[in-house]
Amino acid sequence: MGFPMASNLLRKTESPFVVYDTHAPTTLKFTQLAKELKLSKNVSVAATPRDVAAECDVIVTMLPAGPHVRSVYLDEKNGLLAGINGRVNVLLIDSSTIDVATSRHVAEIAGQAGAVMLDAPVSGGTLGAEAGTLTFMVGSPTIETFTLAKDTLFVHMGKNIVHCGTVGNGQVAKICNNMMLGISMIAAAETMNLGVRLGMDPKLLAGIINTSSGRSWSTDTYNPCPGVLPNVPASRDYTGGFGTSLMAKDLSLAVSAAHESKSTVTLGAVAHQIYNQVSTQKEYKIKDFSSIYKWLNDNSEK
Amino acid sequence: MGFPMASNLLRKTESPFVVYDTHAPTTLKFTQLAKELKLSKNVSVAATPRDVAAECDVIVTMLPAGPHVRSVYLDEKNGLLAGINGRVNVLLIDSSTIDVATSRHVAEIAGQAGAVMLDAPVSGGTLGAEAGTLTFMVGSPTIETFTLAKDTLFVHMGKNIVHCGTVGNGQVAKICNNMMLGISMIAAAETMNLGVRLGMDPKLLAGIINTSSGRSWSTDTYNPCPGVLPNVPASRDYTGGFGTSLMAKDLSLAVSAAHESKSTVTLGAVAHQIYNQVSTQKEYKIKDFSSIYKWLNDNSEK
Amino acid sequence: MGFPMASNLLRKTESPFVVYDTHAPTTLKFTQLAKELKLSKNVSVAATPRDVAAECDVIVTMLPAGPHVRSVYLDEKNGLLAGINGRVNVLLIDSSTIDVATSRHVAEIAGQAGAVMLDAPVSGGTLGAEAGTLTFMVGSPTIETFTLAKDTLFVHMGKNIVHCGTVGNGQVAKICNNMMLGISMIAAAETMNLGVRLGMDPKLLAGIINTSSGRSWSTDTYNPCPGVLPNVPASRDYTGGFGTSLMAKDLSLAVSAAHESKSTVTLGAVAHQIYNQVSTQKEYKIKDFSSIYKWLNDNSEK
Amino acid sequence: MGFPMASNLLRKTESPFVVYDTHAPTTLKFTQLAKELKLSKNVSVAATPRDVAAECDVIVTMLPAGPHVRSVYLDEKNGLLAGINGRVNVLLIDSSTIDVATSRHVAEIAGQAGAVMLDAPVSGGTLGAEAGTLTFMVGSPTIETFTLAKDTLFVHMGKNIVHCGTVGNGQVAKICNNMMLGISMIAAAETMNLGVRLGMDPKLLAGIINTSSGRSWSTDTYNPCPGVLPNVPASRDYTGGFGTSLMAKDLSLAVSAAHESKSTVTLGAVAHQIYNQVSTQKEYKIKDFSSIYKWLNDNSEK
Repeated sequence: MGFPMASNLLRKTESPFVVYDTHAPTTLKFTQLAKELKLSKNVSVAATPRDVAAECDVIVTMLPAGPHVRSVYLDEKNGLLAGINGRVNVLLIDSSTIDVATSRHVAEIAGQAGAVMLDAPVSGGTLGAEAGTLTFMVGSPTIETFTLAKDTLFVHMGKNIVHCGTVGNGQVAKICNNMMLGISMIAAAETMNLGVRLGMDPKLLAGIINTSSGRSWSTDTYNPCPGVLPNVPASRDYTGGFGTSLMAKDLSLAVSAAHESKSTVTLGAVAHQIYNQVSTQKEYKIKDFSSIYKWLNDNSEK
Repeated sequence: MGFPMASNLLRKTESPFVVYDTHAPTTLKFTQLAKELKLSKNVSVAATPRDVAAECDVIVTMLPAGPHVRSVYLDEKNGLLAGINGRVNVLLIDSSTIDVATSRHVAEIAGQAGAVMLDAPVSGGTLGAEAGTLTFMVGSPTIETFTLAKDTLFVHMGKNIVHCGTVGNGQVAKICNNMMLGISMIAAAETMNLGVRLGMDPKLLAGIINTSSGRSWSTDTYNPCPGVLPNVPASRDYTGGFGTSLMAKDLSLAVSAAHESKSTVTLGAVAHQIYNQVSTQKEYKIKDFSSIYKWLNDNSEK
Repeated sequence: MGFPMASNLLRKTESPFVVYDTHAPTTLKFTQLAKELKLSKNVSVAATPRDVAAECDVIVTMLPAGPHVRSVYLDEKNGLLAGINGRVNVLLIDSSTIDVATSRHVAEIAGQAGAVMLDAPVSGGTLGAEAGTLTFMVGSPTIETFTLAKDTLFVHMGKNIVHCGTVGNGQVAKICNNMMLGISMIAAAETMNLGVRLGMDPKLLAGIINTSSGRSWSTDTYNPCPGVLPNVPASRDYTGGFGTSLMAKDLSLAVSAAHESKSTVTLGAVAHQIYNQVSTQKEYKIKDFSSIYKWLNDNSEK
Repeated sequence: MGFPMASNLLRKTESPFVVYDTHAPTTLKFTQLAKELKLSKNVSVAATPRDVAAECDVIVTMLPAGPHVRSVYLDEKNGLLAGINGRVNVLLIDSSTIDVATSRHVAEIAGQAGAVMLDAPVSGGTLGAEAGTLTFMVGSPTIETFTLAKDTLFVHMGKNIVHCGTVGNGQVAKICNNMMLGISMIAAAETMNLGVRLGMDPKLLAGIINTSSGRSWSTDTYNPCPGVLPNVPASRDYTGGFGTSLMAKDLSLAVSAAHESKSTVTLGAVAHQIYNQVSTQKEYKIKDFSSIYKWLNDNSEK
């Protein structure tokens, strides 16, 4: 995800660039892209996050999980805060999807060190990252910082930029939306499967639900039953789209956040287990999350 | 439900009326209404379903559950088919919400006896019945019979009349829509509760979800979190609306139909248990089904 | 099930026999068995349940589901009660596993007709039926009737004969035990799978659980993890034993009875869906219900 | 928990003692206890974990959660490893119940620093800690270290000392047992409640299950239905015992470990949500976990 996002920023902004990745070929590929584009600005590769922070006043990170964020920002030797070294008002933006508690914890320490940190997880996948059409869900301590980050950074990488309140709320918005989505998709799969087995035409059933109180994005825009909608994963054997294991990851974050906030999410927890089980099966691990419909039917008596 | 539906038919059609109810005051109230309206047509009360069928060629039934439908239609001594007694093309319309298997079984026997039977369960509640704005989900063997029933009967009692395919499909459409709805509402309650406890403003959260992939009727039209939307049960302490025990009943039908058709409805089954538990509690049994939000929060640590 | 049960009664009692089955080869096979055994008593085949009842004062039935019981006992033309025709004190014993409501309803009507009806569902499978080691869970209006039926009938077919209270309680005991069992087995499968994936030796883990508070029949007597116990289905690729679809059927009865009695059975309902899903898959439909362990692991990443 | 465990060690061993707790009154109380006992050995209070480790070659820790263990052992300034400072063969025993990943991670770092670390979570509660009857589930790299720790330490604090394999396996054994227990208890509550509502005597029902395949510790030793067994929490309004929030915590650890090991624990996840919901309600947060039975019944229609 980081590469296409950075590529869009590279193309659309004036500032010089310092990049870092643990995987050297990725940064090499990035400097080659910069050369091909014949940009006048300087693009360099840093040896550590600390070196990035020593040179930059605006930093965007994209990492797999909470422990990576903790380490990249807080490592006493090589972390970003070590590189900032007391400079004030450095703007830190973490676009990783991670647990709320870590997001808020790291932002608090960054704040104590004089920096300003925002969480800005995205949705839209690698396709959206390449096209510059990502949705950013942004937690920011002030509306001014949000607006600044939006105008100078997010608009070059995304299309829908939403202020969700204070730091950590970007994560909250993302896991809440995705928990709602993950449950609704299984519900849509169970419902369409039940109706079809009871003898209804799937398009007719979807039409009735979509004009009634069962309507949801999972039934009217991304219906999991093959043939109901064109141009959705269900109609191309569940290829493309949002993988079952990504949904399992987001639901895991939701279930953990629920435990910490003493919230009950029974359906969220069952949905998590279902995506978890499906995503460990060879046939489904690379399929879109709407393939739950197929899983409910596969090998089963008709 | 039967009374306001019949009242609308009484007012808006020309035909004479024969009514039957096991509860005598209801039929008395109906004949008094007819008098007050000073209608020229004849309105009489029959002693049994058989007596209704002996006199009428179009019959509408509204009953609580499958066994009642079975008995009212099939009882050898007092049932409707006994009253039809071989007359052909009598039109039978059952608007009860019952199990699909019974609906199809009774229709088949009625067909063998020369009658034509449709299932036409409704949604919209007693308010919709009184206002004549019910939705009818109609299973009919032919489109002609559907059109005939729609034009002569359903339009006088409802607003949205949907042909769902063959007999029994009205029931299928209703339980499918309501299963999708029942799951989505709990999902919406869990999601809003989680977000609020993690520090988000509920209106902001609902706004983000409603413009994203978590969108559903349960979030954008009937949000269960108080204060998000005006004029929904959540904003008047969950009074009015669709009761928790009605949702428990519909989900019970869905779970039974799933068992019979070898369909897996894991979330449907969990949702059923949740509404079941809530609907047996004094405080919630008369509340709208969106009160799940309150149940998740009540007495709980904040 | 009926054939081996009847065979044991045939061998071990003195009385003449009248048998009935909708499947003629079964009754033919039975009369041939009687011939081979060179029994002096008379064994005849009746044309209908009514004809059985016209000749016998003690009748045992074994049927697949509630509607069959209803029809065999209550059919006005060919049913057992029609054959009893007012004779008093005929003893009717239904060993079917069916829903509690039907069991009690039919027994009540039989009582009004002057007969005495007991419900006596069994556990132990066809192997137990052949070996005469079934467990009978008996609902009987009086202890005297229970003792009579036990001494003259049940002891010839079973080993463990339990009085569960009044009529219908045999069914209650069976679905309660099997719901507890069905949930415990999935719990055992999830637990053993989790422990093994986290690096524990399965025998060691089972040993710890079995001497601690997690102990259950599903862990200490019928452990679902291959290799933990000899001589259980798990150690012979889940062949033999109690099939996934039988467990799905019993859990369906439990969930329905819960709905009717306003009881909440959330884990029971989830377990039902899991067995339901597994039992519709070609590979698992003929396997023992402990194959849930395999299903959790199959095709999955190690 | 730490206080009564340390008190038993104090009484029963010869070695001098260094204690540390963030809560000063606890260590004060401990030194006073030592004075009252008129022990000849030296008992001192350290200012930090580091100071404990500077003086001791055998160290036992008891902490609430993973982050505390990480901090107490690994903090560069005040942690235990800093105090060991390269001395070899110091024996570290962590009796906290924490996540498997942290347990193994900290042990690995301790090993790299020359120390030997065991995980040894306990069950038995504060009563067991006081009576010296705890169960220790011990993960140890070698059987020799296990035996050493058992003979010199665990026998003074506990009764049942189990070697579960390598480091981290103590945690695995504990969460596996408690997940099995937590699910079984809800299953027992649902089953007993269903049976009672369907008309069975609870003692009779428990007796049948306990001699059949539904048998478990939750039905035969700790039955959640009041009146079935004497001397269990269910028979004293669910006071004493193992609290709902402790079970919620252990199930949270199990669900997290399942996610990390790609194991599916659907029933475990539902059970987690149920204990979570119950434990946030004022009436239940201080009750034994078998109070699920009461929760299923409370305020409900009979």
